[in-house]
Amino acid sequence: MYEPATRVNQMTTTFHATPVFPRGFSCASRNCGIKESGRDLSLFYSETEASAAAIFTKNQFPGAPIVVGREIIRGGVLRAIVVNSRVSNVGRGEEGIRNARRMGAAAARALNVPAHQVLMSSTGIIGIPLPIEKIEAGLQDIASLLQTDPMVGAEGIMTTDTHPKAISTSVGNATITVIAKGSGMIEPNMATMLAYIFTDAEIAIEPLREMLVAAADASFNMLSIDTDTSTSDTCVIMANGQAGPVDHAAFAAALRDACIRMTEILARDGEGATKLLRVHIMGARERAEARRVAKAVVNSPLIKTMAYGADPNVGRIFMAVGKCFDVAMASDRLIAAINGTIVIENGRKSDFDEPSLRRSLSGDPVDIAIDLGVGEGEATAYGCDLTEGYIKENAAYYSS
Amino acid sequence: MYEPATRVNQMTTTFHATPVFPRGFSCASRNCGIKESGRDLSLFYSETEASAAAIFTKNQFPGAPIVVGREIIRGGVLRAIVVNSRVSNVGRGEEGIRNARRMGAAAARALNVPAHQVLMSSTGIIGIPLPIEKIEAGLQDIASLLQTDPMVGAEGIMTTDTHPKAISTSVGNATITVIAKGSGMIEPNMATMLAYIFTDAEIAIEPLREMLVAAADASFNMLSIDTDTSTSDTCVIMANGQAGPVDHAAFAAALRDACIRMTEILARDGEGATKLLRVHIMGARERAEARRVAKAVVNSPLIKTMAYGADPNVGRIFMAVGKCFDVAMASDRLIAAINGTIVIENGRKSDFDEPSLRRSLSGDPVDIAIDLGVGEGEATAYGCDLTEGYIKENAAYYSS
Repeated sequence: MYEPATRVNQMTTTFHATPVFPRGFSCASRNCGIKESGRDLSLFYSETEASAAAIFTKNQFPGAPIVVGREIIRGGVLRAIVVNSRVSNVGRGEEGIRNARRMGAAAARALNVPAHQVLMSSTGIIGIPLPIEKIEAGLQDIASLLQTDPMVGAEGIMTTDTHPKAISTSVGNATITVIAKGSGMIEPNMATMLAYIFTDAEIAIEPLREMLVAAADASFNMLSIDTDTSTSDTCVIMANGQAGPVDHAAFAAALRDACIRMTEILARDGEGATKLLRVHIMGARERAEARRVAKAVVNSPLIKTMAYGADPNVGRIFMAVGKCFDVAMASDRLIAAINGTIVIENGRKSDFDEPSLRRSLSGDPVDIAIDLGVGEGEATAYGCDLTEGYIKENAAYYSS
Repeated sequence: MYEPATRVNQMTTTFHATPVFPRGFSCASRNCGIKESGRDLSLFYSETEASAAAIFTKNQFPGAPIVVGREIIRGGVLRAIVVNSRVSNVGRGEEGIRNARRMGAAAARALNVPAHQVLMSSTGIIGIPLPIEKIEAGLQDIASLLQTDPMVGAEGIMTTDTHPKAISTSVGNATITVIAKGSGMIEPNMATMLAYIFTDAEIAIEPLREMLVAAADASFNMLSIDTDTSTSDTCVIMANGQAGPVDHAAFAAALRDACIRMTEILARDGEGATKLLRVHIMGARERAEARRVAKAVVNSPLIKTMAYGADPNVGRIFMAVGKCFDVAMASDRLIAAINGTIVIENGRKSDFDEPSLRRSLSGDPVDIAIDLGVGEGEATAYGCDLTEGYIKENAAYYSS
């Protein structure tokens, strides 16, 4: 075993077997008629005011909920998040902004909370009008559906996800719960797909924001399904304080681990994916360069199809690393390992046992560790293999 | 029809119905046992000395032929180019360099020309040893096979290409012939896959180099099949002067057009592709920004699968343009057209006729024109759709 490969993902945090909500949080979800069947409208609620922070997509055509959301999050306090799936409210100009506000206001009325404390998200097809009447009707009596299983809310935010995604963990007396959706059009940058994080820890707005940014930096921002950055990426954290103060360092570590675990779950469920692909770069001049190489390798269609086909065409690693033209690397000292087996040593393909590597590649996950040999910079990127399923899904997503 | 779309590819150059070689050039090709069957070794030859220029991959793990080729091209004069397919001579350290030199020397002996006037290329699987004995044996009596059909040489350089690629055109009394291979692992940068350009025009080394760089800049460097940059990209031009002097401006224009036409042929034959995808960006602050957006759109898996599925999910254009975070654009003035039909106007999805756009999208090529609304910068990028065929090809390329 090549040692660096075992350094990928040293996670000490353990997660609850069944995800639960922190104190004071609940959610509701239903079909309001946007999807033909299945939940398409979710509401997440805190019975008391929560410190809040959020990061959004850097895409230059953000959805209307992002434009309005940036305004709302400035207040630093949230009571609820309302989300619809199937239609994303992007590319609709002023009409889109009006509809995002109507959606937030309808949720606020249903919960009897101030409208400026409700964040909204819409995810799905870009460009078509938001069916706001259906959403308003669906929200009217939704408060009566509030309950405490996070999976119920997770279901209502799904688009092409194959399963709802929620995890929770404990930090001291507090709980952290992450609910997310992903699947395609995912290479967040300073933000993520949709990820909602709830905690009953008592944390002020500013440290909460800093911990969120740091956690996303090591997780969601290192995730790429297909290099495409959504117009609706949103990552929000709400901390309602009902569990009292927590140790900040312990909380930050658990938050980071929970975000990494959710990132792996999202990557593994990438459109058409059959396995998780992790690329750990070390020995870079600096972390920023390690990140760039890790992203280049995890995004390379030829690496992704190698992982899918379990065909040990490891020469492709030279290509994917080497195409980062302006990253410092010692080409005659390059080391690479797949699932702990060294496949490149001193810049040359090594004589590994091919049948055994083929067996290892056919498993899940595939871990690629690469040492650039010039410094101390490290980073891990998360992705998935590229399969016929991705093509099938996206050649006809609109009409489906 | 949206006018800018018709500006894509205004080409005045016409090409010969059947490609021919310029005066004094010939080629030979055979199977030397690297592939199980089919030509795997090609030789291109000028009976007199030719001014020469070349550009190579910027990948940081270049193949041995690139390392040796950079040395050879410094002389500015070539007599021949020798190429094998199926094995690429990359990631083999000193052994690779020795084998590249042996390959060039064997070709020089066969043609009775100086070894420092022979350029070599190897294309195929990365990392495994070059079968140099087979190549040397194959070259021994290859001079007797020299003939004047460029398609014969084009066949011997193919890897996953579905057909050999050669075109020719006339400039005054001279001929320009481009022979190339492409298919996958293609996003050249200041260089290209393998492209060999032959002309009998009389042009000195320095202007020849400048014209080659300018032509590649508008063509091969704007091609992307899968964002992956090969370790072996090479583009060479040889001008043997047998047709005498030519008008430089006319030659430069014809060379550029021939490179663009070959780029389109390569894109259309991208691994698994069913159609050519062209993305024309205008209204950018500067050409460099137009290039970045054009590449982002032509590389977007969600745009590529839309072209494949002919599903007019045009909202994806917002996403692909908007993910160029730091490119100047007027989001409320964005205009986009597909095959001349406006699909986005003033930053909003327009009310186009969906069935008719669906029909148009199902054809070949798909032309996407986008006006960023802030300046005069323009660029066109060339690519192809993304299909199950790409996955099939690359999940098992090594073992095939």
